[in-house]
Order: sequence, then C-alpha cells, then structure tokens
Amino acid sequence: MSESIYLHDIPLAEAQQRLEDALRAVERWGILGVEEIPLDENAIGRVLAEAVFARISSPHYHASAMDGFAVHHHATEGAQPNTPVTLPCRSEEGGAQYVDTGDPLPEWANAVIPIENVEPLDDQDQPTAELRSPRTIRIRAAVTPWSHVRPLGEDMVATQLVLPGGHRLRPVDLGALAGSGGSRVQVVRKPRVAVLPTGTELVPVGTAVKRGDIIEYNSLVLAAQVNSWGGQAERYPITPDQFELICQKVQEAADHTDLVLLNAGSSAGAEDFSARVVETLGRLFVHGVAVRPGHPVILGMVRRSEQAAEGGEVPIIGVPGYPVSAALTGEIFVAPLIARWLGQPAADPAVVQATLTRKITSPAGDVDYMRVAVGKVGPRMLAAPLSRGSGVISSLVKADGIAILPAGMQGLPAGATIEVRLYTPAADLEKTIFAIGSHDISLDLMAQFLAQRSRRLSSANVGSQGGLVALRRQEAHLAGSHLLDPETGEYNIAYIRQYLPNTAVRLITLVNRQQGFMVRRGNPLRILSLEDLARAEVAFINRQRGAGTRVLLDYELGKKLIDPASISGYNQEEFTHLAVAAAIASGRADCGMGIAAAAQALELDFVPLLEERYDLVIPLEHYESGLLQPLLELLFDGKYQQAVAAMPGYDIRPMGTEVIIPVLGELPTDQS
Amino acid sequence: MSESIYLHDIPLAEAQQRLEDALRAVERWGILGVEEIPLDENAIGRVLAEAVFARISSPHYHASAMDGFAVHHHATEGAQPNTPVTLPCRSEEGGAQYVDTGDPLPEWANAVIPIENVEPLDDQDQPTAELRSPRTIRIRAAVTPWSHVRPLGEDMVATQLVLPGGHRLRPVDLGALAGSGGSRVQVVRKPRVAVLPTGTELVPVGTAVKRGDIIEYNSLVLAAQVNSWGGQAERYPITPDQFELICQKVQEAADHTDLVLLNAGSSAGAEDFSARVVETLGRLFVHGVAVRPGHPVILGMVRRSEQAAEGGEVPIIGVPGYPVSAALTGEIFVAPLIARWLGQPAADPAVVQATLTRKITSPAGDVDYMRVAVGKVGPRMLAAPLSRGSGVISSLVKADGIAILPAGMQGLPAGATIEVRLYTPAADLEKTIFAIGSHDISLDLMAQFLAQRSRRLSSANVGSQGGLVALRRQEAHLAGSHLLDPETGEYNIAYIRQYLPNTAVRLITLVNRQQGFMVRRGNPLRILSLEDLARAEVAFINRQRGAGTRVLLDYELGKKLIDPASISGYNQEEFTHLAVAAAIASGRADCGMGIAAAAQALELDFVPLLEERYDLVIPLEHYESGLLQPLLELLFDGKYQQAVAAMPGYDIRPMGTEVIIPVLGELPTDQS
Repeated sequence: MSESIYLHDIPLAEAQQRLEDALRAVERWGILGVEEIPLDENAIGRVLAEAVFARISSPHYHASAMDGFAVHHHATEGAQPNTPVTLPCRSEEGGAQYVDTGDPLPEWANAVIPIENVEPLDDQDQPTAELRSPRTIRIRAAVTPWSHVRPLGEDMVATQLVLPGGHRLRPVDLGALAGSGGSRVQVVRKPRVAVLPTGTELVPVGTAVKRGDIIEYNSLVLAAQVNSWGGQAERYPITPDQFELICQKVQEAADHTDLVLLNAGSSAGAEDFSARVVETLGRLFVHGVAVRPGHPVILGMVRRSEQAAEGGEVPIIGVPGYPVSAALTGEIFVAPLIARWLGQPAADPAVVQATLTRKITSPAGDVDYMRVAVGKVGPRMLAAPLSRGSGVISSLVKADGIAILPAGMQGLPAGATIEVRLYTPAADLEKTIFAIGSHDISLDLMAQFLAQRSRRLSSANVGSQGGLVALRRQEAHLAGSHLLDPETGEYNIAYIRQYLPNTAVRLITLVNRQQGFMVRRGNPLRILSLEDLARAEVAFINRQRGAGTRVLLDYELGKKLIDPASISGYNQEEFTHLAVAAAIASGRADCGMGIAAAAQALELDFVPLLEERYDLVIPLEHYESGLLQPLLELLFDGKYQQAVAAMPGYDIRPMGTEVIIPVLGELPTDQS
Repeated sequence: MSESIYLHDIPLAEAQQRLEDALRAVERWGILGVEEIPLDENAIGRVLAEAVFARISSPHYHASAMDGFAVHHHATEGAQPNTPVTLPCRSEEGGAQYVDTGDPLPEWANAVIPIENVEPLDDQDQPTAELRSPRTIRIRAAVTPWSHVRPLGEDMVATQLVLPGGHRLRPVDLGALAGSGGSRVQVVRKPRVAVLPTGTELVPVGTAVKRGDIIEYNSLVLAAQVNSWGGQAERYPITPDQFELICQKVQEAADHTDLVLLNAGSSAGAEDFSARVVETLGRLFVHGVAVRPGHPVILGMVRRSEQAAEGGEVPIIGVPGYPVSAALTGEIFVAPLIARWLGQPAADPAVVQATLTRKITSPAGDVDYMRVAVGKVGPRMLAAPLSRGSGVISSLVKADGIAILPAGMQGLPAGATIEVRLYTPAADLEKTIFAIGSHDISLDLMAQFLAQRSRRLSSANVGSQGGLVALRRQEAHLAGSHLLDPETGEYNIAYIRQYLPNTAVRLITLVNRQQGFMVRRGNPLRILSLEDLARAEVAFINRQRGAGTRVLLDYELGKKLIDPASISGYNQEEFTHLAVAAAIASGRADCGMGIAAAAQALELDFVPLLEERYDLVIPLEHYESGLLQPLLELLFDGKYQQAVAAMPGYDIRPMGTEVIIPVLGELPTDQS
C-alpha cells in the first residue's frame, strides 16, 4: 500500500491536543529540568526555575547616602544660621566623622551632614581647605535622625521576594539578584532540539548549484528560530533519502535531545520516509494537519535506545519541506512547545486590526496562515496579502504579520477587517510607505536608501493601472506608472483623469527609461522588430493587462496592425520585468518586452525600441505628509541618483520634475 | 582646589550634543567597521552592512511543485472525463515523466499533473500499483501551461534586492539569504565596550560581605545591557581607588575597545578620580548632567596609546555609582551610541498614556526619569510611582516603564496624564493586578504563585487606610486591610463604610495572624508588655499612621492609658513589617510591633500579643472580573495555603471566607 493513506489532515487543535496528551503521558509537558549557572551576563534571557528571596539586605548596613560627616542628630540641635554649632571631628557621639557615600555609619551616629553644608575649621577655628580632615566642623542647621542615610534594607530586606520563579532575566534583574546576596542562580534547562535535514536533492548553503540541486536552508531557519525562542538547536548534516540511514540519525538525535525536527519527507511522495521512520522507531499519531501552508506535518514519539543516558520517549515533528511551511510549522508547533518547556506562557504576539486590500480565497477546512504587508494609509491600517506560495520565503521576509483565517472560512472580500499577528513592531508600521503599481528596479534601490532614513518601502507590483485603482481605493501612498495615452502621446495624465477624477495628485517623474526586447544572448532568433514577434518559431512572454509595458506593446502593435493572436505566447503573462527576463533566461520563452536593466540582470541581450517616462503618482494628502518627505528628498539625493544612473537604459535628468496636470473644462473667469 | 568645581550639571541635550560633536570630529559617529561572517544561526540579530541582492534565482530552474508527471500541455489537449488521453511514460514531448516535488522539469515539459489525477497503467493498459513507474498513464483532464510548476525565480530573481543594508537579521532572513545563493554575509562589527568597575569598598558578586563592603554588580548590569543592545561587553575585575592604577586600566581598555565605561568615581568625593583620569588620558567635556537619577555623569575622550593596534581617540563615560543611576546612564547614553554604531535608528520604545496615581515632585532643572508600575484598573491605565531612590535597584526591577519628566517641570498632581516608555510588553499590562494597602508576606507568596498563572501582582505598601483611599480613587483592584474598629472590635467593616460608602465590595479573609513585639535575639531588654515601651532605655520603631498595626497599637495604648509621648521613637515610622524588623536587627531600635514572619525573616525574637484578621477588600467590579479569578482561586489552592501556613504566626483556616457586611439603616419591609 502507498504511504499516501497515512496523509489525512486533522484539525489543528486536535493535532496540538494529541501532542499535548502524548507529552503529558510521559511527563514531558512542563519544564524538563533545572540547572545552576553563575550569575554573570550570560544569564540574560534565562528563566528562573524558582522564586528568589533576598539572602542579605541591601544595603546590609546603614550607609551614608552622601559624602559628608556622620553625626548623632542630638549633637546638632539648636544649630541655626546665626547660632552655629561646632562639632569636634572625633568618632564618638557628640562628634563628627567624615564618611564617603556608601561608607557604613559609625555605631554612635544616626545622620549625615552633606559636605557642602559644613564649614571645616582648623585648630585656630579658621576655615581650612582640609575638607575631609578638619579639626572641627561648624554647622548652621540641625539635622533630623536618619537624614542622608540609606538605612539597612532600604532596597531589599533579607527574605523578601526578589523575583518570582518563571521570570525571564533582564539586565537589571542580575543587579537585584547579586545585590541581595546571590552568586549562582537556578534556571530552567534549555530544551535541546535536533534539526535533521534529509533529502538526496539537498546541497549545503554555499554550494555552487546545478539543475535540480536544492539549497538546504530550512535547518538554518529552524535552528535560528529554536535559539531565538530560548532553546538550544543542534543542526545535523544533510542525510540522503535512505530509510535506514534516516532511522539511524533520528535515533541518535532522539537519544540526546528533547525534540527531533525531521525536515522534509513528511509528505507522501516516493522518497517521503518520515512517517515510516517514526512508526519504526516509536509511534505516529498525526500525519497531516488542516493548516496552510504546512499541512503535511507529522507528530509522533520516538523511543530512546539503550545507548541513551536517559530513557523514555522523545517527541518528533516531521516538518514539511517547503520553506514557508517549515518556518510556520516552527511557529505553530515548536515555539509553544519550547515555551511550555521553559515554564513560560505561550508567546502573546502584538496584534493589529487592519483592512484587507483585496479579496482572498482560503482553502475550506484549513486554518490559513496568510502573510500580509501592513501599513497605514491615511487613517486606515491596511493589510496587503503577499504571495501565498509555500515556496516563497521572500514573502515571509516581507511580511509584517500573519492573519490567521480559521478553518471553515472560504475567503474574505476586499475591505474586510482582519486581525494581524505582528512580526514588525507596531511603531514601525507608521513608517511604512506603500508603493504600488508598475515595477521599476529604481524602486528596489529606493527601498535600500529609505531603510537608512527610517522609512520602509513596501512595494506591490500590480501594473500601472492596478496602481491607479489602488490609489483610488486609498490603499497606497503612491503609484509608479508609465501609461501612454495613445491619443495624445502623453504619459499618465489621461489615466489619472480617468481613474482619479476627484483626487488632487502630484505627478512627479522618477526616470526616463528605455523599453525594448529582452532576448537570449546573441539574439539567436534575430528578433529586431515587432513584426518578428509574429514569426512561428518565436515564443513570446507578455506582461499582464494593465501593465504600462503591455499598453505600450498593444499601442505599437495597433499602429502596425499586427494581430496579437498571431503572436505565440501573447497570453502568457508575467507581473514584473524580472519575471519576464527569468522566463527568457530559462528558455520558457524567446522574447519579451521590458527594460534594459532587467535584461542585464539575467544576462540577456536587449534590443532597444523606444524611451518612455516613468512617473510617481502621489495624492496631495500623502505628498504633503511627513511620511513621504524622505522619499521626495531622495529624488534630489546625489547618491541615489548615481545608483539609478549606473543601471543601463536609465536617464535620470528628469528625476524629481513635477508634471503639470492641466485643469480640464475650466476657463479663466472674466470678471470685467 | 577641590574636584567639586568640576561637577557642574549641564542640560541633557547639550551633553548628548557634546558627545556627538566629539565623535563626529574623530569620525566615530557611524558604523565602526564591517566583518564577514558565515551564514549560520549565529548571524541572528546581526545587522547587514550593505544591501544584499540575489546571486541566483530561487528556484534556479523550473521545478515541479507536486509529486506527479511532467508533460507538455499540448499532449493533454482534449482529455476529458469521458474521453481520456493516454500518455506513454517516456522522457520526450508527447510523453510523461514522473517527478518528485522540487525535481527539475524536463526541458520538453511545461506542466505537471499531480499523481492523484493520474491513472497508472501496466503494459496491458490495466491499472497498476506501480504509481511512479507505470508503462503509460491515463488522464481525464487537460492541463494549462505551467500548472503545478514553480517557475525559475518564483521566489527571488537573480539581482533583485533580498534585504536592505541596516537590516537586523531574523530567522527567515537567513533562509532568503541562503536561498538566493549567499553563504557569507557582511555585517556591522559589534561595538566593543569595556566595563571597568573601580572602588576600594567593592567586592565581587558572591563574596561573604562584611560591614562596609559593597557588592559590585553595576558592571554585570552594564555588560548585560551592552550585550542585549548588540554590543560586545568586556568586564574588568575591580580596580581599587588608586589614581595611577585606574589610569593604567583605562588606557588598556581604551587601546582595544570602542568605548570605556568607568564605573563610579564620577562624583566629587575624596576618592572620585574619574574626572582627573579622563583629563590625564585625554579630555573631559562633560562632568555633570541635569538628569535624575544619575547626574554625576562624565563624558570625555581618551587617546589611544602607541601600544594600540589602531590609534585615535575613544569615548569614555564616567558612570555614577548608584545602581539605578548606572543602569539609566546605560539607557540614556550607551544604548543610543551602540545603536548609532550599529547603523540602527535609536530604539523607539512602546509608550502608553497613563494616569498618575499620586502627586509627585521633581527636581527643578533636571530631566527626571521616574520609575512607575503600570496597570489597568477599570477603564483607566494607571502609573504608580515607585521608589525614587537611586540606590533602589528593586524599583527598576518592579518598573513597568519610565516616565520622563522634562527639565523645568517641578511636579505633577495626582490624576495627571503622563507618557510612560514601557519596559513591560503592553499586552502584559492587562494582566497586572494592583494590590495596595497593608503589607503581608503572604502577598509576596501570592505574587510568586500568580506569576505561574499568567498574572502579575504589583503590590504597593501604603498601610490599610491608604489602601482604602486608593480603592475609593479607583487606583487598585484590591486592598489588604487589618483595621480594627475600637468601638465594635470588628475588623475593616466600619472603615469600608467610611471610605467606600458608595462602592459595592467583597470582604474576603486572607489569614488570621499574630501581632506582637519584634525584639533582638534573647530579648535582652525583656520587653514583654506595652508598659515596657515607656521605659527610658527602650527605643521603639513605629509603623506609619494609617497602618493597621499602628491602629492596633494606638488602640491598645489607649485602653491602657499609656501616653504615646512617653515612648521613645514613637514618631520614627517605617512602612512595612520587614522595614521595622530591619531597624531592630541593625540596632537602630530595640522593639517594634509587627508579625511573627517578619521577625523570623531577620532572625529576631517575637513576643506574641494578640491575633488579628487580615482581609482583602475587593470592589465587586473587580471581584467579578476575569483578571482576578486566578487570585481568588489561589485562596483555595492547597499549595498556596501550605506555603502560607508554613510561616510562623499564620492561621490559614479562615482563608477565602467572605465576611458579610451588614446593610445599615435598612430594615426588612413588612408587607403585611
């Protein structure tokens, strides 16, 4: 029988419950152990295993709070500005003794007079420069008992609670522990987690890849997650897809760690051994969880062997191989387990309510972890869904948070309010500039420059017209656009009038750039003109409808009366210049229209056809906001201009120029 | 001339500006260097020194997104449920080839049919169990080009921006860097910070202290702070107060680190060498900053010696000796400097607006860093000021945040709205139970037990009556009270009627406990009755007015017609049982009234006088809230009860009992 019968998704809550039940049964559903460590700076972040009570008081004696003279308050009675009192500098009641801050008070004293309130006198009762060892002192004010004294226990009294058990140590806590007499501290042992990558197709980070090689970085992400959650990860080298070898490594890992993460092989493919490994070495109780991405999760327990220092069973999680699935499996299953083992409550991420920018669908029956970019446009906090692909790790990198759509919800309309669990600190969301519309590589460069100016540029590529629609829906701060009006030969203005008739906008040129054909090196098919696209052997790759490049192509085709149906691949659409270039580089297509920089990026040849203007469309409301000022300043920043000019096919001379949008249908009023 | 002339406070902003100017002049006002590190889990938290662009695309070939059969879409045309198409399993256009998820697509293929949509057949065209190596496959649906394929560059396209410079690496970032072909990464070098404790009176953590010894833990706190901010701290052993020795150590530290923190000696006392050390080894430009706590700060630059590998000047900060001052100097001066050196914006702490619970005064002219406990009582977020003492590190441990009162503000009334920079995550503030009133050690134990039940108990000791006043002002969730009504002999009820006439409250007994005299071991003065307090040789230490213990004492003195004026020390007040005990243990007083547990804590003898009831007064509104449920459950938790009962003088039998508060002035209505 096929392994695929094992893969049967169960609800997330049930999967978590089975894991909890299994761990409770073997008494591994709480802290795993306690260790004593020295109280030094490495104790930061560790969790106290028990309450700490003060061993000694702090201060542990009555201490002077100032540099000055210790006295008994009785000896100062009657001292006033006009009737000073003189005290001999002798260490006895009735006298005065110099003390530094922190010095113990003499037994006979109960107050300190700060040095600046004292007149030091020599043996002729004349003022002396011997501030600290005069013969007598003269004072002109009486003192109250215990003034300028830090009494024993002012900070902490012996036996009082210093910190509760379960507390995660911060820098000041170390001070309180040390000050109350501690020098070692009982902390919860860090859970040890083995991360075991398997797969014959995997190659280690840094390998020069060949076709079919997959760079193995899930173990890196999982190990880094484990460490950042307070565990101690141990990365294993890649094990090829050999059943016995995997069994051997899993057994070895289980024998000396608290949790085994077996990466990939958790699905039901030809080389997916994980389920069988778990059944062989212990028991499998979950294979498949109704969660996206990441449903082929395996949960089970592995028996420790006789070689192990300690017996019993150890949990194993079969982590799916797609990188987004792997990272989310870490968040969903591993993070709560480590928290539990550290005696900590599960992490309570900050959340924000946000408005969904576009309609989404969600697999019925699955809990759906949707990555979103979050930013504030005008008064509204917006959540823009990012790529749903479980192979797209860059979507997790770009994500400001995760919206969890419960099982049973099949989708949400644009404008719905969703709760986002934030990765990005809430304060940073206010620094996010949402750019939408056409893609240009100068926006990537802009993101890099803005990062150093306390702004985050989150750009979504939906084509020029998509960008104007988004502005109309108040879902972005600006849109990149290069939409040619076939009637006037002018860029963008006609489209702004059409899409944003009631919005005051500024139209600012970013660059002029060359558009042309991207073709493979040497242009083997000699594609030089639009007419060549209709040749039978030429496979074209197009941009999506609404993209400025598409409008330009259609305009040029129309002028030349070339029927799009004659172009093979005209209906194959990609959403960015780079994606078009990638399609050509990989042989998926022979030719696409785009910009020179994209061609250069993928080592393609470029056949220039014409120059076009690429503008930023910015609603006045945002143009005048503080949020966008660093971006607008960048247009006049020499370093940014230089970086853009260094790319082929870019003309930065018009950068920052405002294009005046003439007012339609309004004539100057004649008042005469 | 005295060193004291140096100490002259300047405004905080000016001090920070002088430091910035000095660092700009030597080109140390930006990142200090770049280093290349391997891309492994230790890269977490490091800051990218430059933008990273993708070296290779991910995937770097067209990859199958499923386990299934690679085909060209043309070969599937016409396949429908009733008109299936059969394809030979051959690797060529027109055929089908089995692929696992992640496998490269054959050159001739442009789509994948998932295995579950395929009928595998043997050479007699009969169904076969050979799922992956049948002779032919039968399909009943056509596929579109590129379906179930992850095209080259789906995740990242070579040359695109992966992460901007200045980005602090998180686990998923490591995946994106590795997946786009990175194996090493250029990061900002960690600033090296020397932490140099000085002081003849200092002893290392863990020393058995004698009178006058001060446990040196500032270097521990400072080093832990530095590391947690992304620097690399180096702690030096304690240097005694010897000018030449300190100079030598400072020079040594300056020669191989980026910043020297010279702890203590920054004031103007007899052994405060720091200013002179800085002047000798370089230049001093700030001695004294108008900030509390922590004003005797020193800022300067030290020249590196000829022995140093690199020349130039290194900043030095003379950090004040009081622990709160030291930790805040770290936050005010060191944290922003490390952020600057890491190329990061200064930390932007979460803030919350809160209502001040009591009037505060602030030193005119100083920026005042006031530590506060923060919690939500009813609809209001409250900030309760904690101890202002710069020696009270426990106040920083308890602080949920800092309110910064600008220079010039001399105080604020209770009820004022203040902005608090939070240490505690905002989500945790909602879990804070504010207990106020009389102190009892069972509340310390309660804090420990509640910490494991996702609640934080923040207790302020203001005496029983102070607690009822706070409840009236809606500044706490509950008050501990043991106020005897001399008229009725009943506890608390009369006071509740007086202070909370319009509030529905529950009165729940926590414990019965013994009150008596705390005296030194062996009771050398044989203090056995209230009459003994009036003896001339007995020095008494009292509780503050409003404290239940004080009410009890006054009641008993009144019954016996003993004049308080006859008791020496009657006007000396402490605010907690433990503080009274500490006063006796240290010899400051001979006798005080309090509870047995406090006496035991400080190894005093206890002379029981009577038993009293200690209740919790809880407004109904809070009693019924989810917030307090874990606390109320604790009263019936065997482990908590046991822990309280284990303390001497405690009777837990009435724990959790509700005391009925009879309604006044309402008689049953006679309806007949």
